[in-house]
Amino acid sequence: MARIAATAIAAAAFFVRVSLGVDNGLARTPQMGWNNWNAFACDVSEELILGAADKLVSLGFRDLGYTYVLLDDCWSAGRSENGSLQHNTTRFPNGMADVADQIHSRGMRFGMYSDAGSLTCGKYAGSLGHEDVDAKTFASWGVDYLKYDNCFNEGQSGTPLITYNRYKKMSVALNSTGRPILYSMCNWGEDYPWKWAETVANSWRISGDIGDSFQRPDARCPCGPDEGYNCDLAGFHCSAMNILGKVTSFVDKGIPGAWNDLDMLEVGNGGMTDSEYVVHFSMWAAVKSPLIMGNDIRSLSPSSFSILANPAVIAISQDPLSTSAVRRWRYPVEDVDEYGQGDIQLWSGQLAYGDYVVALLNTGNNARIMNATLVDIFRDEGPGGKPNSAQAWDVYDLWADRMSDDTANLILNSNGTALQNGTVSLPYNATKLSYADGLAKNTTALLGKYTTTIQPQGTLKANVTGHGIGFYRLRPHLGSQKRDEL
Amino acid sequence: MARIAATAIAAAAFFVRVSLGVDNGLARTPQMGWNNWNAFACDVSEELILGAADKLVSLGFRDLGYTYVLLDDCWSAGRSENGSLQHNTTRFPNGMADVADQIHSRGMRFGMYSDAGSLTCGKYAGSLGHEDVDAKTFASWGVDYLKYDNCFNEGQSGTPLITYNRYKKMSVALNSTGRPILYSMCNWGEDYPWKWAETVANSWRISGDIGDSFQRPDARCPCGPDEGYNCDLAGFHCSAMNILGKVTSFVDKGIPGAWNDLDMLEVGNGGMTDSEYVVHFSMWAAVKSPLIMGNDIRSLSPSSFSILANPAVIAISQDPLSTSAVRRWRYPVEDVDEYGQGDIQLWSGQLAYGDYVVALLNTGNNARIMNATLVDIFRDEGPGGKPNSAQAWDVYDLWADRMSDDTANLILNSNGTALQNGTVSLPYNATKLSYADGLAKNTTALLGKYTTTIQPQGTLKANVTGHGIGFYRLRPHLGSQKRDEL
Amino acid sequence: MARIAATAIAAAAFFVRVSLGVDNGLARTPQMGWNNWNAFACDVSEELILGAADKLVSLGFRDLGYTYVLLDDCWSAGRSENGSLQHNTTRFPNGMADVADQIHSRGMRFGMYSDAGSLTCGKYAGSLGHEDVDAKTFASWGVDYLKYDNCFNEGQSGTPLITYNRYKKMSVALNSTGRPILYSMCNWGEDYPWKWAETVANSWRISGDIGDSFQRPDARCPCGPDEGYNCDLAGFHCSAMNILGKVTSFVDKGIPGAWNDLDMLEVGNGGMTDSEYVVHFSMWAAVKSPLIMGNDIRSLSPSSFSILANPAVIAISQDPLSTSAVRRWRYPVEDVDEYGQGDIQLWSGQLAYGDYVVALLNTGNNARIMNATLVDIFRDEGPGGKPNSAQAWDVYDLWADRMSDDTANLILNSNGTALQNGTVSLPYNATKLSYADGLAKNTTALLGKYTTTIQPQGTLKANVTGHGIGFYRLRPHLGSQKRDEL
Amino acid sequence: MARIAATAIAAAAFFVRVSLGVDNGLARTPQMGWNNWNAFACDVSEELILGAADKLVSLGFRDLGYTYVLLDDCWSAGRSENGSLQHNTTRFPNGMADVADQIHSRGMRFGMYSDAGSLTCGKYAGSLGHEDVDAKTFASWGVDYLKYDNCFNEGQSGTPLITYNRYKKMSVALNSTGRPILYSMCNWGEDYPWKWAETVANSWRISGDIGDSFQRPDARCPCGPDEGYNCDLAGFHCSAMNILGKVTSFVDKGIPGAWNDLDMLEVGNGGMTDSEYVVHFSMWAAVKSPLIMGNDIRSLSPSSFSILANPAVIAISQDPLSTSAVRRWRYPVEDVDEYGQGDIQLWSGQLAYGDYVVALLNTGNNARIMNATLVDIFRDEGPGGKPNSAQAWDVYDLWADRMSDDTANLILNSNGTALQNGTVSLPYNATKLSYADGLAKNTTALLGKYTTTIQPQGTLKANVTGHGIGFYRLRPHLGSQKRDEL
Repeated sequence: MARIAATAIAAAAFFVRVSLGVDNGLARTPQMGWNNWNAFACDVSEELILGAADKLVSLGFRDLGYTYVLLDDCWSAGRSENGSLQHNTTRFPNGMADVADQIHSRGMRFGMYSDAGSLTCGKYAGSLGHEDVDAKTFASWGVDYLKYDNCFNEGQSGTPLITYNRYKKMSVALNSTGRPILYSMCNWGEDYPWKWAETVANSWRISGDIGDSFQRPDARCPCGPDEGYNCDLAGFHCSAMNILGKVTSFVDKGIPGAWNDLDMLEVGNGGMTDSEYVVHFSMWAAVKSPLIMGNDIRSLSPSSFSILANPAVIAISQDPLSTSAVRRWRYPVEDVDEYGQGDIQLWSGQLAYGDYVVALLNTGNNARIMNATLVDIFRDEGPGGKPNSAQAWDVYDLWADRMSDDTANLILNSNGTALQNGTVSLPYNATKLSYADGLAKNTTALLGKYTTTIQPQGTLKANVTGHGIGFYRLRPHLGSQKRDEL
Repeated sequence: MARIAATAIAAAAFFVRVSLGVDNGLARTPQMGWNNWNAFACDVSEELILGAADKLVSLGFRDLGYTYVLLDDCWSAGRSENGSLQHNTTRFPNGMADVADQIHSRGMRFGMYSDAGSLTCGKYAGSLGHEDVDAKTFASWGVDYLKYDNCFNEGQSGTPLITYNRYKKMSVALNSTGRPILYSMCNWGEDYPWKWAETVANSWRISGDIGDSFQRPDARCPCGPDEGYNCDLAGFHCSAMNILGKVTSFVDKGIPGAWNDLDMLEVGNGGMTDSEYVVHFSMWAAVKSPLIMGNDIRSLSPSSFSILANPAVIAISQDPLSTSAVRRWRYPVEDVDEYGQGDIQLWSGQLAYGDYVVALLNTGNNARIMNATLVDIFRDEGPGGKPNSAQAWDVYDLWADRMSDDTANLILNSNGTALQNGTVSLPYNATKLSYADGLAKNTTALLGKYTTTIQPQGTLKANVTGHGIGFYRLRPHLGSQKRDEL
Repeated sequence: MARIAATAIAAAAFFVRVSLGVDNGLARTPQMGWNNWNAFACDVSEELILGAADKLVSLGFRDLGYTYVLLDDCWSAGRSENGSLQHNTTRFPNGMADVADQIHSRGMRFGMYSDAGSLTCGKYAGSLGHEDVDAKTFASWGVDYLKYDNCFNEGQSGTPLITYNRYKKMSVALNSTGRPILYSMCNWGEDYPWKWAETVANSWRISGDIGDSFQRPDARCPCGPDEGYNCDLAGFHCSAMNILGKVTSFVDKGIPGAWNDLDMLEVGNGGMTDSEYVVHFSMWAAVKSPLIMGNDIRSLSPSSFSILANPAVIAISQDPLSTSAVRRWRYPVEDVDEYGQGDIQLWSGQLAYGDYVVALLNTGNNARIMNATLVDIFRDEGPGGKPNSAQAWDVYDLWADRMSDDTANLILNSNGTALQNGTVSLPYNATKLSYADGLAKNTTALLGKYTTTIQPQGTLKANVTGHGIGFYRLRPHLGSQKRDEL
Repeated sequence: MARIAATAIAAAAFFVRVSLGVDNGLARTPQMGWNNWNAFACDVSEELILGAADKLVSLGFRDLGYTYVLLDDCWSAGRSENGSLQHNTTRFPNGMADVADQIHSRGMRFGMYSDAGSLTCGKYAGSLGHEDVDAKTFASWGVDYLKYDNCFNEGQSGTPLITYNRYKKMSVALNSTGRPILYSMCNWGEDYPWKWAETVANSWRISGDIGDSFQRPDARCPCGPDEGYNCDLAGFHCSAMNILGKVTSFVDKGIPGAWNDLDMLEVGNGGMTDSEYVVHFSMWAAVKSPLIMGNDIRSLSPSSFSILANPAVIAISQDPLSTSAVRRWRYPVEDVDEYGQGDIQLWSGQLAYGDYVVALLNTGNNARIMNATLVDIFRDEGPGGKPNSAQAWDVYDLWADRMSDDTANLILNSNGTALQNGTVSLPYNATKLSYADGLAKNTTALLGKYTTTIQPQGTLKANVTGHGIGFYRLRPHLGSQKRDEL
């Protein structure tokens, strides 16, 4: 039998203690945060990281749920004579424990980076063979999150078991420290981690590194979007739609505490249009990927800010049912781009409290009317989508209430003081009310904007721009009843 | 040399003891029964299982050969302090031994479920590393059948040897209990079990989980019907025709005691038309898959009942020659469905006593006349299908005597008392006369309905409905002789 | 660097002892003989084997080089209490040592069969874990050849190393007996034996079992002719052209003492036309496959006899240079058969003494003029095929001197006495003069019939029948010089 | 994260000691030299090797950077009784140490050959299991370079770990000798060496052996140019464009000290046109393959000489930034050759000192105008190729200053004395000024010939001959400033 969705075992939850994920209690929903790599690569420093942390707080991102501040490769000065990793004292003059303290003092959590090989990708000392001592070092510094890479792995790959054993060592080492440390496996999908990593790690990368491109093929990312489950070379410079395609066949493998990781977000880095970034962010939320910003947080555009700060979309990611959307159909279109790419896709998936998420994805060049029948949207519910397809549904547009550029500008230009002084307000504050609780209370900011009602056996129609998405929350239509009367 | 068919070694049977399958004496023909998963998933209880057992008896299914009552995942309350699995006492207040006793008292056999991983798919305690103690527990409860799943397998896959070793442990453990327990491997075809499982298990799944669909592609079952022998991700929500296609290249691997398992039947679950379910059931019989019902036995429709209760088709499954039908040809058609699917196929295979089974399969949208030459039907016999193609054959339609809806309704509505009181009669009672013996005696109910005779070098013609099948038993035409004079 | 052809190391032969193949001194050229499987399967007996041996002698096959008489599966009565294999005493009342003696007394060699698994394909006791004792048994019986199969291998496959270790055990065991026993690996090409078996075995099967068909696809042989080097399921019922295609990319792997085995010959079994069998036999010779007849030697047709008894073609197989022909080009044609198959191919390869073999293969339906330029024929010699393409070549047709049906009938109908009494003569007697020596002496029967001379930079043209072959030996044109003056 | 380019870690170089490649300090740029195999195969001798060394000196190749003289297979006389390899005393009457001394005395370095198997490809004693003693032998002889082949590897392949362990043994053994020996892995790309070999070897072959052909498919090299990262049979007789295609997806894996090896050069062997050899040499330089000549150095044509002696192209190979060019796009063309091959490709990559290399590759039959936008050329720099695409660039044609045939003839016909006596001059002398230093000093001979300036957002246009290349160095356009004023 296939692994069953969270819903199917809801009934069981009353009877047995269910051990989920790596069993450290973390990442019950996909982790959110910021990482320096995509925008800064090796150019890291205490100043950069703490500056980013400050920005995450002042611009409201922390309160929107982006709580992890992640330092990637190149922080190291190698291994000391006593065998422990040392930080680069020029770049981090106050040391990593201080960085962690400062981040903790801002109400955020601190992540670092190492590699399950002899060297990191940047050719600093790796942790292969040093798992215990390095885990202890990270714990002693107050680290809350470890991204664990795959370069220079000394041939230790090729079967699931070889890779599992290599990555499990750090998993055990981290757990042995007694400190809860989110364990983010970054082996680029080699040896099918979706088949085995859920008992080892809190998330696992499913592809080569993302590049800041919507769907341009790149020779260095040789596997196509339909080859995610059987790719012999992860590569890098993979486009957003390439990676989305790759996860399609195993979206169900993400479960609370253990997620498919589609890599960090490119929103704000300039390689895609606004509409493309909207697709990128929406779909990462829909398939329950971690949402880790990879931008230069110091110089965000209003449009990038308003994408990343959309609580109605984040609420899809952080939905307590924790079930990924599924691609229901895909058809080629003729208005392809210069690379020959273009199709239309329907995705849908169950949410908590009886809601559903629907994505009408148009990767063709031109805007078009897209149609999604309730039968297709509710494919998994029963024959013909019943019983769900036989009732009416209210449609909430998840982007209709997107923050205006004016508001975003106010926040950005004031470095967030417009938020603190109440000139404008953050659309949602998850520090005060978790997304799960907010959804339970039908908080408006999390639901999107009501647009229409689909009749039983009806069809959701939307005009979707080229390289764009219609992204909706469907709620059971209650007629004259009010929802909270149910 | 390739493994040889049962016929080819018939002569050898007089000389040496032939060790077949897992060598526990079970499943000499493909197992038949009922399992709760497809219809009820984790919603299991003593009441459900025993209720199903009662239904299987009263409706006549037991006497048609469906003798295994199988309890799937979610029965567990985890592992006790002494290390043995415990049942959920709320759901099974009288314990599993009592359930087994009750089922045995009804003349049936009881099956349970575990997983060759740290957790079951439903995230209960798995048996990996606990094979011996769990096998003893199952034996002590009187269990007759173990479905053994593949979730959370801790990376122990990737080569046949790794997987073989993992599954063999339970095989040895079950054999060591001294109780004959049918061992049903459920590793979704990973690592090519058709290459090695016949000495370990009584059956092995060859694909991801079936979904209740005839041939709709699903993104979560990424390998197509021609990729059964080289699929890197089993997935789930696989359609019936997808799974049938997958077994095509290794149908010969099923031998007495060790069968290719195409997963449980969806007949009665509502996702296919009657004609599609007829195809599904016929082909599962033709390729010697276990026939395990996966429906809600309490609410069967007459049409579903009359499919499952067709002894002429079951006799193909339980034929003592135990040789799978083989696909002889396949051609695309133009009347494809909305997913682009559609073809025509000819399958044929040898049966005991000189008979043959022929399936004319039409997965196109429209009804069509299909033709199968004797040359093609008897491809394996010799050049040009000789000597068989040079003789005349009587054609028996295996669905022509299908039970009427009226009769089925009488049985279903009376909860079987119409059977007990003789108002109607069960078409066949395998409890009294095995299929092998019934065939040896030319029992009419097992042969189908005579329709025509094909002349030497002739052609079998049939009008086959869209998404339908012509399913026939061919018998040597005896001229004026009577068959029992031979 | 790629493994180099025998020619390239000719110079080296004077300096060092070169260790070739499995190092038992056997199969310096591809082995030739007869095996019962294709025609008789499990229906074996002393009578059958010795009768075949008699026929091989009386019809002249032994003297044509078919010296191995091979008994396949089903001879066994299992393993005795002392652990050694026992023969079936009903079928072989005088025992295997007696069979061996009788075969030896006829000037032939005796081969037997076992399996690198727990059971043979026919489900008799296998040799896995019993290699030493079984090798000793075979040696004690006087066995000269072991075909070693792959059924029921207990999951011991999946990487070259696992399979190598399994098959090497028997290799070592056979060598340890002190008796030279030709070791014929039959693992169906699993785990790429062409990459590693040359130090273990004298030959290795490269595909699933052959079926008696020219190029009909069969669902049970799922890999196409271009997938020989990356096939995940060997299958069986593979057509002759399917198997030929499969070896194409690694023809160079056959070296003296270690050969690619394309499986036994179907010539005489009735599933192909005469022209197709001519292709089959020619190409098996051209690519240096073992030539093991698989027919009913008692009832050969004249045309089958004259194919198998063509010394000019056998001389290609047994050529002392031991270099396979290579496919130079292949183009699709439009006159395909009912299965969509059809192409034209040019093969050529170097022979000893400066000759070359050329095959113009037409798998299309219709006869056609085919052209092969000297540039293409001598592709490997140097740029533009120079220097060979710049000289003239005499063309010898290897089938032009094929024995007439009248002669063949005389031999067959007289059970060979027409040979013994000199009414007709065998075209060649390799018992008296080896093929190598016969070629060195320019023996006419080995060279084919002169037909034409190709001028420098010219083209070989031939009218090739549908499903047919033009098969030629090219010899340097000597002008007025005689060859033996050189 | 993907492994990062050398540029990205430039900043880090000030902080930590970076361990690169196999850590023997060699091959900081791709090695250059000459090897006898392609032209002479096994026909080796002291005379041949020293004669080649003399030619390399006299013709100026040593001073152009071709400093390694490499003796390939067939030098051996097997293993002596004490277990060490012995040279063939007929071919090398003065022994290998003497050969090494002589080569060293000419200011060059000496390489030899062995095999990670029981036999070399030429069937001499291999080093598998003898790594330590053989490494010591090589070191004792004064060997500077080991090409380590993959024949007869006894099944030790199939996963990266198995192959890594096999090749690492020799790596450790070589390092243990204390003598720096460049370690050139030749396992034909099996088991993905680009994933793991950089900590083991200085270079690794990525494909089967090259054949002297531009793009003709050969049946013995079955994987196409797009299957470099997932090829199950390396084969041989691979064309230059086939191998170039194969490296495309992992060009980034080459780093200082550890290079992708596309196999030895065929320039001068006659199988390609001059234009094709220009492509071959240019692209080997662009992707940072070792540049090992494989010709008969005694009989070079002027055109081959002037290809190999082009310092502006060699400077691309030896560029100190050590970053491979990347394929930016590829489109099919209609003017394909007789094999159906033909496309156009754009490659570009970063060089040291802010320069870039651009290759406009035309594998179609006909000359054509090709266009490359700055946006595409600078794809990796940032969105829209910014900031680089927004500035002007000077274009230097790397072939415009190619040596004339007259000059080449003078050098060749005089056996280099025309160089020594100053009649003509070598275009560059890397013995006196390294390529890195020459580039730092803007040495004209290394830069190519200025042809035009591309305006911001402009397009590079070039008329590229069929089977030809436009190969350029782009330098930032400095307006009225002089470069050395910057």
